[in-house]
Amino acid sequence: MKIIVIGGKGTIGSAAIKELSKHDIIIAGHTHGDVKFDMTSPDSIKSMFEEIGKFDAVIVAAGDAHFEPFAQMTPEKYKVGLNSKLMGQVNIVLFGSKFIQDNGSFTLTSGSLAHDPVRGGSSASMVNAAIDGFVRAAAIELKRGIRLNAVSPTILEESMVKYGAYFSGHIPVPASKVAKAYSKSVEGGQTGQIYRVWE
Amino acid sequence: MKIIVIGGKGTIGSAAIKELSKHDIIIAGHTHGDVKFDMTSPDSIKSMFEEIGKFDAVIVAAGDAHFEPFAQMTPEKYKVGLNSKLMGQVNIVLFGSKFIQDNGSFTLTSGSLAHDPVRGGSSASMVNAAIDGFVRAAAIELKRGIRLNAVSPTILEESMVKYGAYFSGHIPVPASKVAKAYSKSVEGGQTGQIYRVWE
Repeated sequence: MKIIVIGGKGTIGSAAIKELSKHDIIIAGHTHGDVKFDMTSPDSIKSMFEEIGKFDAVIVAAGDAHFEPFAQMTPEKYKVGLNSKLMGQVNIVLFGSKFIQDNGSFTLTSGSLAHDPVRGGSSASMVNAAIDGFVRAAAIELKRGIRLNAVSPTILEESMVKYGAYFSGHIPVPASKVAKAYSKSVEGGQTGQIYRVWE
Repeated sequence: MKIIVIGGKGTIGSAAIKELSKHDIIIAGHTHGDVKFDMTSPDSIKSMFEEIGKFDAVIVAAGDAHFEPFAQMTPEKYKVGLNSKLMGQVNIVLFGSKFIQDNGSFTLTSGSLAHDPVRGGSSASMVNAAIDGFVRAAAIELKRGIRLNAVSPTILEESMVKYGAYFSGHIPVPASKVAKAYSKSVEGGQTGQIYRVWE
């Protein structure tokens, strides 16, 4: 399979690539990879797909959201997550569906904060839940056998140094375990699923 | 209690007002009500709260999302739901939290499409799920005893004539039943809850 991994140089993306290493992998990303693009720009997403052409699967392991205590949040700070992690991924499905082969798959990334919030994470919780809702809904409308799932990881062992202070008491998982869920989505037959990797 | 009901002239809003009729009700809305404002505009939301002043509870039973088959959706069409039903409600909590009394409550409206999608509803599913995720998260950060919940209704009996064709096999509920969940949120003591009225 020809698989595009967006954010393939990140912790999750590189673990997913290792798990799926028998396939033909193309890395796309903002600053690293075979193809550079900006997932907050619909035009840039279109150009990325035009440059790559036909493919069998996309994994998205990229997208930002703003972390800050709720009392300091603003409409503008919520837009970071809405434009990047949420609509970036939604637009990858919207535009990628013109280039994906029959029976191909899209695998997005949400996160456990959708259901298990932490202080400062209201934007991430909102965006992660939105991705899960979008995946359940859009999956039932895709044609040509195209599938759509999301992987919902909890905090990674590899991210505890940087983000652990936010996640007191959360049990981190290794990226290598999260990577299995991408493999299940890409190589399996299910659609409309949220693969929770929460422990 | 002084309760602001946004969308108080709509099917759900008017049922909620009937349920909570012993309270002092102020209706706010885009075209109808005691106070007119535009929930897609942060400035207009601020002005609405400034005009009303201190209050004890807000119920939001308003907000649009665009319905169309996924293949015809565009980034612009998703913005309708993001700017109206999602960020309209989020901004009402953000700005309203400066005006709400101690131990007051915010009650937002999401919907069962978050988990039980229909064709043409990918934006509504995304937005409803996002509201639920936001409510779970922001609720844990509110101060002064302020509470935040959402009511998640399925299709209303009163809406079957207009929208029933989208909802084959869904069991509609009367708005009077949905109204009970607003009462539970406003008069009860819970926070961070999603009250599902799905049957």
